[in-house]
Amino acid sequence: MKIGFLGTGIMGGPMAAHLIDGGHEVYVDGNHHVPKALKEKGVYECNNGREIAEQTELIILMVPDTPDVELVLFGENGVAEGLSKGKIVVDMSSISPVETKDFAARINELDCKYLDAPVSGGQVGAENAALTIMVGGDQQTFDTVLPIFELMGKNITLVGGNGDGQTCKVANQIIVGLTIEAVGEALLFASKAGANPAKVREALMGGFASSKILEVHGERMINRTFAPGFRINLHQKDLNLALANARKLQISLPNTATAQELFNAVAAQGDEELDHSAMVLALEKLAEHKIK
Amino acid sequence: MKIGFLGTGIMGGPMAAHLIDGGHEVYVDGNHHVPKALKEKGVYECNNGREIAEQTELIILMVPDTPDVELVLFGENGVAEGLSKGKIVVDMSSISPVETKDFAARINELDCKYLDAPVSGGQVGAENAALTIMVGGDQQTFDTVLPIFELMGKNITLVGGNGDGQTCKVANQIIVGLTIEAVGEALLFASKAGANPAKVREALMGGFASSKILEVHGERMINRTFAPGFRINLHQKDLNLALANARKLQISLPNTATAQELFNAVAAQGDEELDHSAMVLALEKLAEHKIK
Repeated sequence: MKIGFLGTGIMGGPMAAHLIDGGHEVYVDGNHHVPKALKEKGVYECNNGREIAEQTELIILMVPDTPDVELVLFGENGVAEGLSKGKIVVDMSSISPVETKDFAARINELDCKYLDAPVSGGQVGAENAALTIMVGGDQQTFDTVLPIFELMGKNITLVGGNGDGQTCKVANQIIVGLTIEAVGEALLFASKAGANPAKVREALMGGFASSKILEVHGERMINRTFAPGFRINLHQKDLNLALANARKLQISLPNTATAQELFNAVAAQGDEELDHSAMVLALEKLAEHKIK
Repeated sequence: MKIGFLGTGIMGGPMAAHLIDGGHEVYVDGNHHVPKALKEKGVYECNNGREIAEQTELIILMVPDTPDVELVLFGENGVAEGLSKGKIVVDMSSISPVETKDFAARINELDCKYLDAPVSGGQVGAENAALTIMVGGDQQTFDTVLPIFELMGKNITLVGGNGDGQTCKVANQIIVGLTIEAVGEALLFASKAGANPAKVREALMGGFASSKILEVHGERMINRTFAPGFRINLHQKDLNLALANARKLQISLPNTATAQELFNAVAAQGDEELDHSAMVLALEKLAEHKIK
């Protein structure tokens, strides 16, 4: 299949490479960075999104944020200008659920299909074709694109209609961020009270306090290994999506707001490139005590 | 072995029964409530803690809170008055880690041993002898009491010295409370954004957002089944321990404080007897939207 891929960065680069390995022809924007590894596999370079959309049947986006998706789709010489009836747009970026519904409606008006399909699993998941993919759209389009998703990910779910994939990703990032915060408060409390945090973590695994985060991120806090993993500045972007959409939806997310402030405090120290488990550094600084 | 058991309530009643079933002689305070089931198994009724301590080698406490433990141990005709060299006091109540260290020191001064051994697993865990037991004390005393613990629980860990068992329990309750809050914020966000929360929960299980709480309490929020389980008013007591001890230890627990306020808000509506997953009712009330 001829597939357009806009956004061949840290995540998009290896994702596009898996598509070529799967036997597809991949068209990218030659005016943006195209990784050497991808060029060597053989990609077709176009001048802009319009040309890519003219040449291909399926157009995948993997760009940083909501305004980037809007620009790539609806800007001058954007994807929308090159679309014709029956083509499919798949946005795998992590962006706003509310705006996603609008983008999908505008693509549908061109007699084209839209899937929002954000991922979790980070750079390692992208490289190993092991991403979790949360999809919003109709069943038929999902079924059509599923073989393409399977080249990039493992745990692939159709959550609901357009926007629901992005909503699911935001829900994921809320739970992950707040569970990191919870484990940070608990281990800091244990350590400051004089207990061995490694022993406490061990005793809590297997009970109701157990989680993937206590297992992985709890260990990082104890071992002081804050190399990413998933960077604080990316999680800040995701919690910003949560809080901005919550405002639009008129709901209150008090602990998401606090978690974001703790990320901001770590970033203020120049540590926004650390793994998100380093959120605990802000709690530690307030207490003038490090987990040990 | 002759075992004293002070506090034969909802939890302590079945725990003491397991000790009798295990072949031990159990001495209780006849001036407090002794469940009929326990009387039928055959308990020895004493007049106070002093008499119980005089008659037995090992004295177990299972009472509501820190002041109750202090009264039972050091009040008039309390356990301390009946202790003599080599006896063991085991406090299985969930109380303050800081005060526990003081209680242990005062018992040690009488040439007796002390273990703090709070549990999790609730009434069901007590009835099924399936409690998780988090122990603080020395290795030798732990080894001596282990066969007794094994009659009441399954996952039994010596976390560290005196107080560390209680510290571990507080850490457990922080993580459980804050993970419930996290799942509540995420599912409410998903529902208000128009996604199916059951589908979202399903998509998130297996990834980094997965936890025992997402599995069990997330399902309760979606199915609106708030029968306890573990009651809000008990979790309020535990988060109060966390916050009061954090103040003494000079650390800040911002999301524990918010979770406690949300419990308070649910209790203010008269719902403090519901399961702790009903914390989500406070978030729902703020948003004027129920998860569905």
